[in-house]
Amino acid sequence: MMSRLAPRRPAWLFWWQAACPQGVSAQQRTWAGASRIPGTGSPWGATGTSPLVRRGSSSAFSCAPEVVLTRERYSVRRLPFSVVSEDDLAALERIVPGRVITDPEELEAPNVDWLRTVRGSSKVLLRPRTSQEVAHILRYCHERNLAVSPQGGNTGMVGGSTPVFDEIIVSTALMNQIVSFHNVSGVLVCQAGCVLEELSRYVEERGFVVPLDLGAKGSCHIGGNVATNAGGLRLLRYGSLRGTVLGLEVVLADGTILNCLTSLRKDNTGYDLKQLFIGSEGTLGVITAVSILCPPKPSAVNVAFLGCPGFAEVLQTFCTCRGMLGEILSAFEFMDAECMKLVGLHLHLACPVQESPFYVLIETSGSGAGHDAEKLSGFLEQVLGSGLVTDGTLATDQRRIKMLWALRERITEALSRDGYVYKYDLSLPLDRLYDLVSDLRARLGLHAKHVVGYGHLGDGNLHLNVTAEAFSPSLLGTLEPYVYEWTARQRGSVSAEHGLGFKKKDVLGYSKPPEALQLMQQLKALLDPKGILNPYKTLPTRT
Amino acid sequence: MMSRLAPRRPAWLFWWQAACPQGVSAQQRTWAGASRIPGTGSPWGATGTSPLVRRGSSSAFSCAPEVVLTRERYSVRRLPFSVVSEDDLAALERIVPGRVITDPEELEAPNVDWLRTVRGSSKVLLRPRTSQEVAHILRYCHERNLAVSPQGGNTGMVGGSTPVFDEIIVSTALMNQIVSFHNVSGVLVCQAGCVLEELSRYVEERGFVVPLDLGAKGSCHIGGNVATNAGGLRLLRYGSLRGTVLGLEVVLADGTILNCLTSLRKDNTGYDLKQLFIGSEGTLGVITAVSILCPPKPSAVNVAFLGCPGFAEVLQTFCTCRGMLGEILSAFEFMDAECMKLVGLHLHLACPVQESPFYVLIETSGSGAGHDAEKLSGFLEQVLGSGLVTDGTLATDQRRIKMLWALRERITEALSRDGYVYKYDLSLPLDRLYDLVSDLRARLGLHAKHVVGYGHLGDGNLHLNVTAEAFSPSLLGTLEPYVYEWTARQRGSVSAEHGLGFKKKDVLGYSKPPEALQLMQQLKALLDPKGILNPYKTLPTRT
Repeated sequence: MMSRLAPRRPAWLFWWQAACPQGVSAQQRTWAGASRIPGTGSPWGATGTSPLVRRGSSSAFSCAPEVVLTRERYSVRRLPFSVVSEDDLAALERIVPGRVITDPEELEAPNVDWLRTVRGSSKVLLRPRTSQEVAHILRYCHERNLAVSPQGGNTGMVGGSTPVFDEIIVSTALMNQIVSFHNVSGVLVCQAGCVLEELSRYVEERGFVVPLDLGAKGSCHIGGNVATNAGGLRLLRYGSLRGTVLGLEVVLADGTILNCLTSLRKDNTGYDLKQLFIGSEGTLGVITAVSILCPPKPSAVNVAFLGCPGFAEVLQTFCTCRGMLGEILSAFEFMDAECMKLVGLHLHLACPVQESPFYVLIETSGSGAGHDAEKLSGFLEQVLGSGLVTDGTLATDQRRIKMLWALRERITEALSRDGYVYKYDLSLPLDRLYDLVSDLRARLGLHAKHVVGYGHLGDGNLHLNVTAEAFSPSLLGTLEPYVYEWTARQRGSVSAEHGLGFKKKDVLGYSKPPEALQLMQQLKALLDPKGILNPYKTLPTRT
Repeated sequence: MMSRLAPRRPAWLFWWQAACPQGVSAQQRTWAGASRIPGTGSPWGATGTSPLVRRGSSSAFSCAPEVVLTRERYSVRRLPFSVVSEDDLAALERIVPGRVITDPEELEAPNVDWLRTVRGSSKVLLRPRTSQEVAHILRYCHERNLAVSPQGGNTGMVGGSTPVFDEIIVSTALMNQIVSFHNVSGVLVCQAGCVLEELSRYVEERGFVVPLDLGAKGSCHIGGNVATNAGGLRLLRYGSLRGTVLGLEVVLADGTILNCLTSLRKDNTGYDLKQLFIGSEGTLGVITAVSILCPPKPSAVNVAFLGCPGFAEVLQTFCTCRGMLGEILSAFEFMDAECMKLVGLHLHLACPVQESPFYVLIETSGSGAGHDAEKLSGFLEQVLGSGLVTDGTLATDQRRIKMLWALRERITEALSRDGYVYKYDLSLPLDRLYDLVSDLRARLGLHAKHVVGYGHLGDGNLHLNVTAEAFSPSLLGTLEPYVYEWTARQRGSVSAEHGLGFKKKDVLGYSKPPEALQLMQQLKALLDPKGILNPYKTLPTRT
């Protein structure tokens, strides 16, 4: 009943305006305004309620099995940090009065990652409101040799934002103020704890967009996004945060405030220190404020959702698309049939096109609706006519666009409902991108529930996920180091955008030479000589 | 005689196809295929001839006065490095046989910056061909405590690429090989000594563009561009090198080769070490190879050259332009009437529009000529109709586009022919951008020959230049620290894109807090403990 792009038909172009299967519409009502992370009913920034509590009280996982302590599942030894004493708690209470959380129930959620794969045993969480409070906290912890685990929205994929042992959690949840926004330049300055979706709404009301978008937008904090150098759905168009983040304020391990919070598009006065902290996952400093360049909001956005008969056709569609859509192409995402099956099964989202081995989501963003429609029309005619695409649907209004995006954005959520998820986030040469998925599917056979491949094709970024009923060391042994060795042979990256966190830190060597590892260790020693900042993360375990 | 955009006329849009004043055409023949740097008849990379020799033999400056030695003009003391001995020369000859230059005549050019404002007294220049040779050179120099001045095209504006005393010059001129280019991804991997214009030509033949363009393209090396984080004319569209450079190979001070030369669009495996070297001006390592993401070549390029009655109108034209041209806007440059006077006076370029207080150059790059022309037409109608622009001309073919660009790109050259140039390269808030130029003009009166303002308005980047018959400490005293203090009050940057080099290193504090300076010093000490790499540059003099 849905308007479709019928191939090889002269007047094939139907804009998906009204018709839509009931299942998709019903689902849309449920998640349209909600966060994309399960169990977070409303954006935390809006209510001021701690995200940690909300996530902990999630109904989605209320019947989920207990998460095993990280220190029990993995072979990891506590480093000789001090243990938080009653005197420490009193001192911290003086720094952030009324915002020292020690209630075990409140600490349940921030000790566990949202994928429910790692679990720390922190006894205290702090909620500073200002950079000065963060500075006081770190100065104190540095002197006392207390380890710290900085935490934003706790939406990471690699166990980077939860403690491993009893590290003090420093949450940015109350640092959620917008400092300034410039209506001409589009420069937004805000505290690190601002929720991405809130920022997005704020700048969109003013005619701009945040140059970053990702499935976890309803929960993730901008500080965490920058600390992990998040990629996401707009990277193809606006580039990485390394180009769009103009300035940072960072608190160093010893409590020094490093204020590089400028709003200048160009500044070549010495080393670009902020780059050290982008993507260092809280191991070199705690980001407390961010200055980011927001591009003007495109006046016309279109989304096409297409079915392709094979991965070779996906790749050819991409090349055709880049040539014909040029500067208005803002996203090129793909997902395989297994992904579609899972979002149907667990989230009841209906496939808007004929069943196909592969699906492609293409977004255009431009300043002229008519021009964009014409370009898109020419492109679709080409790919449908040549058989690269077998079926498609097109959305131009916000509601339908969101519905199509949800199919792609909510795959992570569907996977997490399917069981224990082994996640791999790889950069690979485009022509070999899907080979690993097929290869693994054959290799694992019935040992896995599902082996799926999806991701940001335009960036060469594959999300390869394997689900099973529960965590199993033997399945892990079949997957690793196989996946990493395969990736290394293609000179790919074993972490394209998720970072290393706790779970990937020891596979860094598959993508970086020993000289780079050594320099990383030297930088860590320089900036955090006692190693108190997010220990057991990012840097390989010293042997 | 030239087709112009006549304001307030319904069918006002004339594409500048044929008519063109004789003066401009004649000039075009002279500089169309030539380098933009005076005295460099052909791109060095093409012939394999050393740029240093060619620059030294420049006829443009054959009658120019001798450049005073840097150590005599500025109060700077030689650091206690070793002095190159006969044994050293023999050892270096074994590393780069036949490529150890000690002939004083050949050393004349590389000892002087192209602006002819600083002069070193190096006695030896080396021309390695490979990263391994660079590694051997640095290992030797590190052991012997010999200082090194890395040099690319020697086109810098701040004396960063010439020696200050007797540092050994390590030239990248012979490291000019393209390693690989990927026709689908657009990733170019090449040695550091490739000339930007050569690379540009190479990728354009394959349907891509280098995401960097600047006036010195005929001479500058890509390694130097990256080492100085060059901004240039395409930054507005493609963002900074921090986003487009995908990987680097760098030789560290002790000769270690750090190979981070990946070609991945996304790679979050640990700290992004290459960022340390982008913009560090050769003080932390010598860049030997670069991997850079080239965007697809736009199929339609248009350039409009407009006259504006005042700076307020320039700003309003920019806002209108950004709104109406959106994603196809690829450059927004401005220049004042004084600039136009100088390019006319020294380079005989004719102004293509009515004389105006300000001129704006707007470039669009897109994938659909018809669509782009329509957008541009709507925009021009708007700005001409509202009086923001009083006269304009439009070019669509390559030759005319180059002629219009030359008016903007060759300002630097015209200035250097006007006398000694005091150069300031500032980032400032848009609404105050030109105030400093007017202010200085009033302040200097007859003490200066010319005070001009131009630059990359779209990036908030002002090039403020003052010319005088010769260098004068008293004029310098009137300019500095006045200009820097003015900039600091606006929270601007005292070096937007030129870097600090030798001439700006001590004004870093106007744009960076003490904590940042300290961290910079620590990074330098970590990566180059003996301080042999490009000494006296970038980092403030220790007092």
